[in-house]
Amino acid sequence: MSGTNGLKDMIACETRISSIVEDQLAYAGYDISEFMEHNANFEEVIYLLWHGHLPTQMELKHFEADLRSRYAISDAVEQCILIQSRKHLHPMSVLRSTVSLLGVYNLDAEGDTIESRYEQSLQIMAKIPTIIAAFARLRTGQVPIEPRRDLGFAANFLYMLTAKEPTELEVRAFNRALILHADHELNASTFAARVCASTLTDIYSCITTAIGTLKGPLHGGANERVYDMLMDIRQQGDATSYLKEKLDSQEKIMGFGHRVYQTQDPREKYLREMAKQLTRDTPDEDLYRLSREVEVFMKETKGLIPNVDFYSATVYHMLGIDSDIFTLIFAMSRVSGWLAHIREQQNKNKLIRPRSDYKGPQNLTYLEIGRR
Amino acid sequence: MSGTNGLKDMIACETRISSIVEDQLAYAGYDISEFMEHNANFEEVIYLLWHGHLPTQMELKHFEADLRSRYAISDAVEQCILIQSRKHLHPMSVLRSTVSLLGVYNLDAEGDTIESRYEQSLQIMAKIPTIIAAFARLRTGQVPIEPRRDLGFAANFLYMLTAKEPTELEVRAFNRALILHADHELNASTFAARVCASTLTDIYSCITTAIGTLKGPLHGGANERVYDMLMDIRQQGDATSYLKEKLDSQEKIMGFGHRVYQTQDPREKYLREMAKQLTRDTPDEDLYRLSREVEVFMKETKGLIPNVDFYSATVYHMLGIDSDIFTLIFAMSRVSGWLAHIREQQNKNKLIRPRSDYKGPQNLTYLEIGRR
Repeated sequence: MSGTNGLKDMIACETRISSIVEDQLAYAGYDISEFMEHNANFEEVIYLLWHGHLPTQMELKHFEADLRSRYAISDAVEQCILIQSRKHLHPMSVLRSTVSLLGVYNLDAEGDTIESRYEQSLQIMAKIPTIIAAFARLRTGQVPIEPRRDLGFAANFLYMLTAKEPTELEVRAFNRALILHADHELNASTFAARVCASTLTDIYSCITTAIGTLKGPLHGGANERVYDMLMDIRQQGDATSYLKEKLDSQEKIMGFGHRVYQTQDPREKYLREMAKQLTRDTPDEDLYRLSREVEVFMKETKGLIPNVDFYSATVYHMLGIDSDIFTLIFAMSRVSGWLAHIREQQNKNKLIRPRSDYKGPQNLTYLEIGRR
Repeated sequence: MSGTNGLKDMIACETRISSIVEDQLAYAGYDISEFMEHNANFEEVIYLLWHGHLPTQMELKHFEADLRSRYAISDAVEQCILIQSRKHLHPMSVLRSTVSLLGVYNLDAEGDTIESRYEQSLQIMAKIPTIIAAFARLRTGQVPIEPRRDLGFAANFLYMLTAKEPTELEVRAFNRALILHADHELNASTFAARVCASTLTDIYSCITTAIGTLKGPLHGGANERVYDMLMDIRQQGDATSYLKEKLDSQEKIMGFGHRVYQTQDPREKYLREMAKQLTRDTPDEDLYRLSREVEVFMKETKGLIPNVDFYSATVYHMLGIDSDIFTLIFAMSRVSGWLAHIREQQNKNKLIRPRSDYKGPQNLTYLEIGRR
């Protein structure tokens, strides 16, 4: 029984949080199309991932209030962000250390009852947008904007980022993007968080782990490079010649293909539609057109399908988000899933401790250093 | 093919770093008894874990110089430790965030060549003792001591911690403890570090992950609780009645049993011998005697054998280390193995991404909130 192929197709745990079956993604039994068709908000989905059922009106009201009352960060945490707010420092490293420091300063971070851990989850979920918005502004020389308790998760973040109240379309688009990135079964960051959680460590350690794992170029970061590509194509003027050149020099085109999906990435079409709506009648309308050209070219020449990252680049850009913090936005959404998986792991815990297959020399004799 | 039992006995990867076969632990083919019998120093073992062979005299000279020239930490990092140096903050959380910040401030942290990654490994390996010693002193109101480049890894740490040059016996004992904790195949922190590394993220993210994972009570921290137990027994005066009471109330006795070892923990006897030597003719001689009483009692009543944590508690205490930072000392040693595993993972990488077995409801229909 060997998992030397990166544990590919091996079952590592049971879950009730999300499933990918026949190229469809579902959260706790609801296909993601359900949330799109009914214009669900992100808070409903967080609740679903954490509790296993959709909230009633009363449950949602309390849950939203629980999050909103925890949006604000302390001066000490803002100070920690400030000392890391230089343009050349890696945004994901800054998020990693700020969440870690949040855990150092939260005196209840070591509480290991179910209630304590739930409180820590709420704290992390509510404060990550505030941390990201403060960082995004401080590193560009702007003053952070205080969170607004009268706004929901998506609207409040866009407000803290841009200092403007977002339009209805922007809030709807961002809610959708957050929902579509919320969970994805045992992706590497979620699995790393569960391995970490399985030693019964604190929640901040698990989320720090997940952020550091998402930081890797084989996991997060693809939509940032999609955006860079779109900018290059825009400058060069012609998608086809740009792509041919890249493919001729064996370069990877970002935003296509997926380890788990074969025929489609079920999240992509919703992001495509949002990219279309958000760019319509704006100076960035060409971004959507260029994206479509890339999509068609890749389908025809390589048979590859766009994944979740491909159109999210345009969506995030249109929401006023700088491309070098796209992965932070991914983290802000996926943290809902990470927290659900940590909770599930710790509620019915078994230490995750596989074995390795030793392939080196054996029974060697130590020679004194002069004789080596 | 199911790993729902915490991937127990499943093979997750190949390795040439360490192996556990028939209750014997070997590093790159050398049984750990080889290092004990020949009084190896920790630097030789780090070199072995990283390079797959023991260093020649010249290689060791260069490697030691590489580490020593990187002992010092910047004022910015010391400042970060200072703001976290309060007695009530969790030492492992402080180490987690300080290593994370080390990565934020290391402008080469994103370098992904083999040379860059090696440099980052050296930086982390060399600076962690300095961070731990500075933290240990600052939180007790003492001024940090600058590292001394003329001292080896073990001696320099004890010097920075206590401000005294350690004796030969102390240096030998600490070298042995560091070697015995250096690597242990795919324990949870090492496995979490490899999952993280498999996204090709930076080394600081992987080590932050490992520290957060080691922090969990099912992984690190057992020797701290062994020490607390010995203090309780010392106060109560009688090991047997203390243990009977604990066992009667279903409490777990720390420092016994191991998920992987059946008949013995091969590291334990060397730590026992060091505990004996270090306590001899000191006011703490009773710690060794009490430990032996606990060992005999546990063997006779429960058939349980002491593990690596049991005697390391006494060894660390005798070296002047406070019990609430014992897990930091574990991390300071194990980081050598973590770095070896990260290097091995990334040099021949395959994303670690298993699947989960979905056990929840399916095909649910979203009801409008008023109808739930």
